[in-house]
Amino acid sequence: MSMTMTQKILAEHAGLNEVKAGQLIEAELDVVMANDITGPMALPIFKQMAEKVFNKDKVVLVPDHFTPNKDIKSAENSKAIREFSLSQCLTYHMEQGKCGVEHAILPEKGIVAAGECIVGADSHTCTYGALGAFSTGVGTTDIATAMATGKLWFKVPSAIKFVLKGKLNPYVGGKDVILHIIGKIGVDGALYKSMEFTGDGVSELTMDDRFTICNMAIEAGAKNGIFPVDEKTREYLDSHTQKKYKEFSADDDAEYDEVIEIDLSDIVPTVAFPHLPGNAHTIDEINENEKIMIDQVVIGSCTNGRLSDLRKAAEIMKGKTVANHVRVMVVPATQKIFKECMKEGIADIFIDAGCAFNTPSCGPCMGGHMGVMAKGEKCVSTTNRNFVGRMGDTESLIYLASPEVAAASAICGYIADPRKVAE
Amino acid sequence: MSMTMTQKILAEHAGLNEVKAGQLIEAELDVVMANDITGPMALPIFKQMAEKVFNKDKVVLVPDHFTPNKDIKSAENSKAIREFSLSQCLTYHMEQGKCGVEHAILPEKGIVAAGECIVGADSHTCTYGALGAFSTGVGTTDIATAMATGKLWFKVPSAIKFVLKGKLNPYVGGKDVILHIIGKIGVDGALYKSMEFTGDGVSELTMDDRFTICNMAIEAGAKNGIFPVDEKTREYLDSHTQKKYKEFSADDDAEYDEVIEIDLSDIVPTVAFPHLPGNAHTIDEINENEKIMIDQVVIGSCTNGRLSDLRKAAEIMKGKTVANHVRVMVVPATQKIFKECMKEGIADIFIDAGCAFNTPSCGPCMGGHMGVMAKGEKCVSTTNRNFVGRMGDTESLIYLASPEVAAASAICGYIADPRKVAE
Repeated sequence: MSMTMTQKILAEHAGLNEVKAGQLIEAELDVVMANDITGPMALPIFKQMAEKVFNKDKVVLVPDHFTPNKDIKSAENSKAIREFSLSQCLTYHMEQGKCGVEHAILPEKGIVAAGECIVGADSHTCTYGALGAFSTGVGTTDIATAMATGKLWFKVPSAIKFVLKGKLNPYVGGKDVILHIIGKIGVDGALYKSMEFTGDGVSELTMDDRFTICNMAIEAGAKNGIFPVDEKTREYLDSHTQKKYKEFSADDDAEYDEVIEIDLSDIVPTVAFPHLPGNAHTIDEINENEKIMIDQVVIGSCTNGRLSDLRKAAEIMKGKTVANHVRVMVVPATQKIFKECMKEGIADIFIDAGCAFNTPSCGPCMGGHMGVMAKGEKCVSTTNRNFVGRMGDTESLIYLASPEVAAASAICGYIADPRKVAE
Repeated sequence: MSMTMTQKILAEHAGLNEVKAGQLIEAELDVVMANDITGPMALPIFKQMAEKVFNKDKVVLVPDHFTPNKDIKSAENSKAIREFSLSQCLTYHMEQGKCGVEHAILPEKGIVAAGECIVGADSHTCTYGALGAFSTGVGTTDIATAMATGKLWFKVPSAIKFVLKGKLNPYVGGKDVILHIIGKIGVDGALYKSMEFTGDGVSELTMDDRFTICNMAIEAGAKNGIFPVDEKTREYLDSHTQKKYKEFSADDDAEYDEVIEIDLSDIVPTVAFPHLPGNAHTIDEINENEKIMIDQVVIGSCTNGRLSDLRKAAEIMKGKTVANHVRVMVVPATQKIFKECMKEGIADIFIDAGCAFNTPSCGPCMGGHMGVMAKGEKCVSTTNRNFVGRMGDTESLIYLASPEVAAASAICGYIADPRKVAE
């Protein structure tokens, strides 16, 4: 029987020769992750099941959402996972100031690799599909079980195949691709399915493009997003992890619910208007005669807080100044990225332009802290969700976009086309 | 009639030839400052009195306490002062990402100068006394009146004269001096009095030492702290402000309530134990056999977030690593200081050691955000107040210290002597 890439990984981890869509399986887990919101909720459940985690190399707790601690409650939560991590002698002990945003730090530290079966108590755990892994977000009870047993039940997903062709134009990146796709299929367009990306166009995408694309698979309702392993993946893995990894690929005759062709060269800078990631508009549709004035810009998060994202934003901002009425939060996703931004002069460009350059954190993405909005305010954000009230007051508005659009908008004070600002 | 330095400045600003302690006067104001906590409370009162501020060059609103905005309430507060500042066309419009902590940014931008009469709706407004100005914190109604009229009533303070002599030893600085003094006279030791610093020892103190000392005058209950203007002051002013400033000095026969001699060479690294800044212990008194284990270190604030503070902390941390159980928040006080830390490699030292290097904010100092403590946690902090619950849970403990002690403690994981760590 033929299988999709995702199904092959799941079959391997279930010890089965084949699996099919809809089948219930129990899979062995390679990495189990939780953060300072979900970890503390899972611990009491875990403690009813076990005293020790199933494998101290494979369980990782990352303090990143409400860190640096914004209040007493978040301090208590960080304390809970800190004490657990230290008392369980977890191999990867993560601490504020020493790590970064979960979905950036795990690949960076080589904790996740191709062919693995990974769960995280965070919806954007699907990010690691960029490395050719099966990776998905799970709930609190599931993560507690996973920490205790190293296994979880899954319903094998069916898949949509996205055949990418062509090449991205300048000032267009992974964020535009995924916003374009979600705009096309809708926020439930891939419900409980795998989004499997294939085609000649894949090789044109950087690893950071792929991380961004897989990161937002959940915003189309997908169980996971996944890219084939190619030279770029191998190069990334070989320079980041010491793990032995396994490459899987879909059978040629694998069955897909749907096959969608995407010509990368057709994609232009795209903005998701409030209040859904699927509410996509191309930058060309935004009539400059009716400027959408903004109050805040956020550049960062597990979606777009990587080095290449910040490089692109800095390229637009270099030598320019943030509009007088706008505040800009730049949040590199890890300490390593923070340092590289300093080394390359990117941090200077941001600060000279008038941006706050923050310590790594999920911060503003979920309205946690580090850039929350007041009533009626509008934000262009490189994050992943523009739901009602996500980043502050229920009457604030979020426009999701690429780092380039965000940077251009910061300079102009309204949603702007990076191709024009860069001219 | 002879006057203290403070009295001379007040007399000049009241248009009087002389004033005496206890006298009620109305003084003209040179700078009127409020922040994102006190400003929004003052605005409704202001609006009952005036439509326009008395002078758009002299009113400054600084968003620094709950910025980057930690929640909707703080976003509303920032919005209130932003809209006011822009609509009043204030000369110094301050915005997140473009400024810093009020008491660091005002001297840095040359907004405050010697001989001036300055009020701010923040207790640590006394900081600017380091420049030879009369500067004090006032309440919300007062600041609203000051913004509207440019004048305020004061009761002329009497003074305590601190005659400084000798020279500080290595790893001892302004913070140790003021903690030593408050330890000596108590937290009400200078209640509604001026703390006037004089003597040969003054010239041995850097401007940053003086800022730190004046900053904490309020912690001894003082109305203000003030230093004479000398070569170092002039050098600072000439490189920071274009204002014409006036030098005042106390009459030789001025009356003081008390004269206290401080030999700077006697002072050793000093730590204020919970829960009062006056609860001072020398580092030598802290028996290393009974280590005080800590959970967090904060290096920053209007007290000790200046470049020289961060340089000193970095010198201790260079090539070392923060203890495994400790998290460290470094918060440069302004964007300029942040940039200089990058340029000098200080930011790299902190990050390599495992510190969070944050965007300028008052943040953790008042338990606002950016490093709040859980129950039972202990923090060594370079901030100014160690009151019950100031930085988080009411059962958390704050030890006030210099940047050197804070850095040494971060490395050791317990309150440590920087002289020993640096060895």
